[in-house]
Amino acid sequence: MHIMHVHIRIKPEHVEAFKAATIENGVNSLKEPGVARFDFIQQADDPTRFMLLEVYRHADDVPKHRAAAHYNKWVATVSDMFAEERTRSFYTNVFPPDQDW
Amino acid sequence: MHIMHVHIRIKPEHVEAFKAATIENGVNSLKEPGVARFDFIQQADDPTRFMLLEVYRHADDVPKHRAAAHYNKWVATVSDMFAEERTRSFYTNVFPPDQDW
Repeated sequence: MHIMHVHIRIKPEHVEAFKAATIENGVNSLKEPGVARFDFIQQADDPTRFMLLEVYRHADDVPKHRAAAHYNKWVATVSDMFAEERTRSFYTNVFPPDQDW
Repeated sequence: MHIMHVHIRIKPEHVEAFKAATIENGVNSLKEPGVARFDFIQQADDPTRFMLLEVYRHADDVPKHRAAAHYNKWVATVSDMFAEERTRSFYTNVFPPDQDW
């Protein structure tokens, strides 16, 4: 699997709006055939810090996601909410095996 | 959900043994009723760096995991493989909701 972790810090006044917009993006992203998971989590000791854990079946499912209307709506909605530039890290699964994601 | 991310760096000569031991720990950890997920991933640009993404139903499922025979076997097996002390971060889920983990 092609796994992308996105680290995000949001301006405090936008935390609730960011959560709402990102839940909507998550619901729609999971409808993409190439998206096995779209987890959205909030750091326990700092509610302005979030992670997206995006699990794609193949690397070429990422540009398909970026072309989707829901992704572009999300970017337009949240781009002014970031407190700093978001960062990304990339991983492959060791366990579970591909069919269990 | 009570989500713990563990960041691990392994001495290069132990990477394959670490993977085998951690897969075994993952298979057994998923049999614990309090463990919703146990994902084990490898950083794409540095094969000595790994993450465990452990998703517990409740915070009090963590001490149960630490008391399990398979966890203690894993610690004993891999403790000399770490290139540096492992670090942990804690999160709660925003999406998906609890029942979908």
